[in-house]
Amino acid sequence: MFVTFEGVEGSGKSTQMARLRAALEAAGRTVCLTRQPGGCALGQTLRGILLSQKTAGLDDRAELFLYLADRAQHVAEVIRPALAAGAVVVCDRYTDSTVAYQGYGRGLDTTLLQTLNAVAAAGFVPDLTLLLDLDPAVGLTRATSRNAAAGTAEAEGRFEAERLEFHERVRQGYRALAAAEPTRFAVIDAAPGPDAVAEAIWRVVAARL
Amino acid sequence: MFVTFEGVEGSGKSTQMARLRAALEAAGRTVCLTRQPGGCALGQTLRGILLSQKTAGLDDRAELFLYLADRAQHVAEVIRPALAAGAVVVCDRYTDSTVAYQGYGRGLDTTLLQTLNAVAAAGFVPDLTLLLDLDPAVGLTRATSRNAAAGTAEAEGRFEAERLEFHERVRQGYRALAAAEPTRFAVIDAAPGPDAVAEAIWRVVAARL
Repeated sequence: MFVTFEGVEGSGKSTQMARLRAALEAAGRTVCLTRQPGGCALGQTLRGILLSQKTAGLDDRAELFLYLADRAQHVAEVIRPALAAGAVVVCDRYTDSTVAYQGYGRGLDTTLLQTLNAVAAAGFVPDLTLLLDLDPAVGLTRATSRNAAAGTAEAEGRFEAERLEFHERVRQGYRALAAAEPTRFAVIDAAPGPDAVAEAIWRVVAARL
Repeated sequence: MFVTFEGVEGSGKSTQMARLRAALEAAGRTVCLTRQPGGCALGQTLRGILLSQKTAGLDDRAELFLYLADRAQHVAEVIRPALAAGAVVVCDRYTDSTVAYQGYGRGLDTTLLQTLNAVAAAGFVPDLTLLLDLDPAVGLTRATSRNAAAGTAEAEGRFEAERLEFHERVRQGYRALAAAEPTRFAVIDAAPGPDAVAEAIWRVVAARL
């Protein structure tokens, strides 16, 4: 089973992924918790480029291709073998992030992005995508405090530094993707506290197990 | 004017590019001599990944997307502004390398590669592509000695380490590309000494100036 988490900055993906892992393991499943970008050695290098505020003047299409390179390598090196070994793969961001951020956010053609995603993903489509839906103004406040507290504002904050309008477009993109694929997507209201969100996620996942 | 050099490992591109630059400058032109991968800061990082023999298990599609990321950034940051400033841009490898190496060499779909190249190149098609055509067995011997002498065997030798059959397919790919676009391509026999090759190249370039 292949589960992806999607959502704007500060929507609580990391917290909820850890909660889901614990619940899945309690239910006796082996879990591979991973992320894009940065779920393999190449990806770590690319994540450093993609998320660092030091990366100045990155061309939109170069950004896109770096995400796709990370995805292709990560599918080959991590996701494919983990699924083959029978693990539940839980991945922080995947193909939908590309459409939401590079398509709706940056303005690249979404049809082209779907084609490129198909190449990078090599046929590995999530069984379930959990969209943590949140007002980006709320999410950005959360994400900025988190990065400040963790000292990762510079290393991880390139997207947080985008204007609110960008993140509003990303959220609308996610909602459009969810509406287009209601079977694969579950839209979770990420505004309530972590316990309530974890419970909502577990109801959806348990029903699919 | 936008000129690209293509050819198998050891075909003499670097030597001939330096000769062409000197000839162009002697003719009063401003020249921007550059390369892919590695013609901009991002590209230098990506070149380190793409050409190093330390890079193990790189997925073919991840390799492809890294080349495209380098290309997109390099076009935006170097080629586009240099052409706008009126320079003659002379670039070591460009879109044709992707079709020859990742298509004919690795076996990725060449139609897809042309589509991806068009995205990365953002409409910047070379006015002239000089294909230095050489038996890859000869080229590999040249390239391996050059890397050994320069101490760059590990840092730059990942493709030299491919089997001869790979490089034979790359050469055939280049020839097919040249046959399909005879106006853009000039096929130069790279077997003779550097003076004779430089002369053949200058005849072609001078006729296009």
